[in-house]
Amino acid sequence: MATKPAVKWLTFLSDYGFEDAFLGVCKGVIARTAPEVRVLDVLHLVVPQDVDQGAAVLASAVPYLPSPAVHLALVDPFRATPVRGIAVRTADGSVFVSPDNGLTSMAWAACGGPVEARLLDNRDLWNPAPARTFRGRDVFSPVAARLADGLDFSQVGTPVDVDEVERLEARSPTVEADHVHGEVVQVDHFGNLTLNLERSHLEQAGIALGDDVELRCSGKTLVVPFLETYGQVGRGRLVVCEDSFRTVTLAVNQGNAAQRLRAGRGEPLVISRLHSPLVPGPVVLPPEPNVVAIVRS
Amino acid sequence: MATKPAVKWLTFLSDYGFEDAFLGVCKGVIARTAPEVRVLDVLHLVVPQDVDQGAAVLASAVPYLPSPAVHLALVDPFRATPVRGIAVRTADGSVFVSPDNGLTSMAWAACGGPVEARLLDNRDLWNPAPARTFRGRDVFSPVAARLADGLDFSQVGTPVDVDEVERLEARSPTVEADHVHGEVVQVDHFGNLTLNLERSHLEQAGIALGDDVELRCSGKTLVVPFLETYGQVGRGRLVVCEDSFRTVTLAVNQGNAAQRLRAGRGEPLVISRLHSPLVPGPVVLPPEPNVVAIVRS
Amino acid sequence: MATKPAVKWLTFLSDYGFEDAFLGVCKGVIARTAPEVRVLDVLHLVVPQDVDQGAAVLASAVPYLPSPAVHLALVDPFRATPVRGIAVRTADGSVFVSPDNGLTSMAWAACGGPVEARLLDNRDLWNPAPARTFRGRDVFSPVAARLADGLDFSQVGTPVDVDEVERLEARSPTVEADHVHGEVVQVDHFGNLTLNLERSHLEQAGIALGDDVELRCSGKTLVVPFLETYGQVGRGRLVVCEDSFRTVTLAVNQGNAAQRLRAGRGEPLVISRLHSPLVPGPVVLPPEPNVVAIVRS
Repeated sequence: MATKPAVKWLTFLSDYGFEDAFLGVCKGVIARTAPEVRVLDVLHLVVPQDVDQGAAVLASAVPYLPSPAVHLALVDPFRATPVRGIAVRTADGSVFVSPDNGLTSMAWAACGGPVEARLLDNRDLWNPAPARTFRGRDVFSPVAARLADGLDFSQVGTPVDVDEVERLEARSPTVEADHVHGEVVQVDHFGNLTLNLERSHLEQAGIALGDDVELRCSGKTLVVPFLETYGQVGRGRLVVCEDSFRTVTLAVNQGNAAQRLRAGRGEPLVISRLHSPLVPGPVVLPPEPNVVAIVRS
Repeated sequence: MATKPAVKWLTFLSDYGFEDAFLGVCKGVIARTAPEVRVLDVLHLVVPQDVDQGAAVLASAVPYLPSPAVHLALVDPFRATPVRGIAVRTADGSVFVSPDNGLTSMAWAACGGPVEARLLDNRDLWNPAPARTFRGRDVFSPVAARLADGLDFSQVGTPVDVDEVERLEARSPTVEADHVHGEVVQVDHFGNLTLNLERSHLEQAGIALGDDVELRCSGKTLVVPFLETYGQVGRGRLVVCEDSFRTVTLAVNQGNAAQRLRAGRGEPLVISRLHSPLVPGPVVLPPEPNVVAIVRS
Repeated sequence: MATKPAVKWLTFLSDYGFEDAFLGVCKGVIARTAPEVRVLDVLHLVVPQDVDQGAAVLASAVPYLPSPAVHLALVDPFRATPVRGIAVRTADGSVFVSPDNGLTSMAWAACGGPVEARLLDNRDLWNPAPARTFRGRDVFSPVAARLADGLDFSQVGTPVDVDEVERLEARSPTVEADHVHGEVVQVDHFGNLTLNLERSHLEQAGIALGDDVELRCSGKTLVVPFLETYGQVGRGRLVVCEDSFRTVTLAVNQGNAAQRLRAGRGEPLVISRLHSPLVPGPVVLPPEPNVVAIVRS
C-alpha cells in the first residue's frame, strides 16, 4: 500500500517585486527542476536590498509556514566580494537557502535552531553558464528546488561551521527607568508601524497596559494610550498596542499611522511614562482625534 | 479502484495587499492545515476596509470560480464589538467564510443561494492563542482550510438563522423618465469605471443602444455615445458601454476613463436622454476627442 | 503499473495588473476548465496594451519556463477590427495562445521555432455568450486550459499558414564605426535599463570590455565604464554592463539607473567610443559618483 506522498513545500521571499519577470523566471526554473514542488509566496516586496527588513519579516512569518519546508530567501545587495550562497538545515528538517548575509538567521530559532550548514558550491546543481548578476535564477532557485524535491542536504556543497554563517539580530531597544528608545521595524499595508519592542520593555520602564504614554516620533510629541488592541480606541485615533505577532505597534483605528506620523522603517522614537502634570504649562487641545499635542519651549 | 480525488479549491479575496507578509502567512496557515488544498487568488487589493467594494467584486467574480469551492473573504474593519466570524453554505455545495459584515452576501445567489449558516465558534479549529487583531490568520484561514479539506459544515460552530446573517445590496440607481442617477462601483486596472447600472435601467429612461447621452460626472457635462463596446469608438474617445460582466461602464478606448473624468469609486453621476436642441445656446466644440462640452449658465 | 503523470503547465503573462479581479477570474476559468493544470505567473504588469514590451519579456523568460507548456499571453489593444485569436505550436511541443498581434512571436525561437498555427475559432471551447471586451476570460483562458489539459492542437480551430501569423522584431540598433544608436527596451524593478544591444554591437563600434564609453541619454552626456557586471563599480556608480540575459544594460550599483538618468522604456541613446582628449575644453568634475559631465558648447 502506497503512502500518500507529502506536499513538497518551497517558500519564497525576495525583493524582486512584480514589475518584471525576475520572479516568474525563478519560478520557471523551480518548475523545470522539480515540477512537483509547490511554491508558497511569503513576500516579494522587501525594500530592495534591505536585508534587515527581509530577515525580520521572514522571522515573524516562519512559525506560520509549512514545516519542514525549504525556505528560499533572496535579498542580495552587491558587496565588494559577492556573498557566498549558503544552505542551513534546522532541527525541524527545514532548509534555508540564501546568500550568506544573515537574511535567514533570525528565522532559524522558530525551526528548532541551526544544525548544519553548507556552501552552495556544487556546480552540478546550478544552471549552466550562470550569470554573475542573477544568482537567484541560476544558483539559488535550482538548488532550492532540488532540496525541496528531496535532494540530500549533503549534496549541495562544502560543509561549513554553522557558527561561521552570518547572523543578524534585531536592534535592541534601550530601556531606561521611565522611557524606552526604540525604532520602527516594519510598516504594513494598512500603515501600522511595528516597533522593535515587546510589552515587557514598556513594563520595565514602568508603563502598564491602560496607561497613557508620551510618544516622541518624527518631530512630534503626542500623548496616546497603551492598550491591548487598536480596536479599543475610536475610529481615527492613534494607539500604542500589541500587534498579532506580540510586538508593540503604533496604529490608527481604521486609519494609517505611517501617514499620520510621517514615519517609516528605521524611524527612531521614544515612549515615556507620563508624569503628572505633564508639563509646567497648559496642555494644548488636540488638533487630531485623541492626540494631545504638548508644546515644549 | 480508487477514484481520482477532485482538486480542493479555496478562493481568497482580501484587502491585505502585497507590501507585507500577512497574505503569505495566511497561505502558510492554510498549507500547514490542509496541504492538498489549492488556493486561487481572486483579489488582494480591495481598498482597505471597503466591504462594499469587496462584496461587489466577489459577486461579479464568483460565476467564474470553481464550484463547489470554499470562498475565503477577508475585509474586516473594526467595529465597537468585533464582527463575529461566519460560514454560509450555498446550494452548490460551496461555503463562504468571512466576517459577518455582508462581504460575501452578494455572491451567494450565483452559487444557488444560501442554505445554512454557522458561527465560526469552534475554537478547536482555530490557531492556539489567537490574536484579536489578526483573525484572518488565526481563525478564518484555518477554518476555511479545514472546510476545503472536507470538514463537515456542521463542525465549524453554532448554527444561526441564515436570515440573520448580514447582507449588503448594491445601491440601486434612481431611474426617472429621461435620466438615471447612478454611481461608480469599481475602477479597474485600465481606468474603466463600472457603474451600478444595467442596460435595462438606461432603456427605462428612454435611452437605447446607439444613442448619444448626456453624462454629468465630477463637475463635467459631456455628450458621449452609448454603444455595445468601447471598441466602437476611436482611440482616446469616451463611451458609455456594457462591460464584460454586463454592467454599464464608462471607458476610453485605449485610454483611462478614471483619469479623464477625475472620478473614482462612489462618484455619483447622471446619464440623461439627449433632447434636441441640447441647449438654447451654441454647442461648444470638443476640447477632447469626441466629447462635446456643453456650457451651462 | 501507472506512470507518474507529468505536471501540466500553463504559463501566464498579461497586462491585467492586480487592482481588480480580471486575473483571478481568468484563473477561475482555467481552474473550472482544467482543475489539474498548474498556472505559473510570468508577469502581469506589462505596461497596459504595450505588445512590444510583452513580447520582449516573454522572449527573455521562455528559456527558463517549463517545456513543453502552454503559454497564455494577453496584451490586446483594441484595433478597428478585433485581432483574431491564435495558437502557435512550436517544435518542443509547446503552444502559445494569444491575440494575433505578435505578442508571442519573439519567444517561438527558444521553443524550437513555429511548426503550425490555428485560429481559436472553435466556439465549443469558449465560454457561452462570450463578451467582446473580455476575450481573455471567455476565449483565451478556456482554450489555453483545454490545451494544457491535453486537448489535441487540431481541435482549437481552423489551420492558418504559420507565415501569416503576425510577428514582431526587436528594433535593431544602428551600429556605426565608433558609436551605436540604441534604445531602452525594459526597466526592471531595481531601475536597471535593458537596451536593445548585445556586447557584439559595442565591439563592432570598437568598444571593448574595460573601456570607458561616452553615453548620451535623455539630454545628458556622461562617461561611464563598460564592464562585465555592475558589481565592478562602487556603490552608487553608473555602469554599462551585461545583464543576466546577456543584453547590454545601464545599471547603478545598489542604486536606480532609471531615476538617475530620468529615462524609461523607448528612450533613445547613443554609446560612443571615447576619443582622447574627450573635448577641447576642460572636463568638469563629477556631480555624481563616477560620472564625468562633459560640457558641450
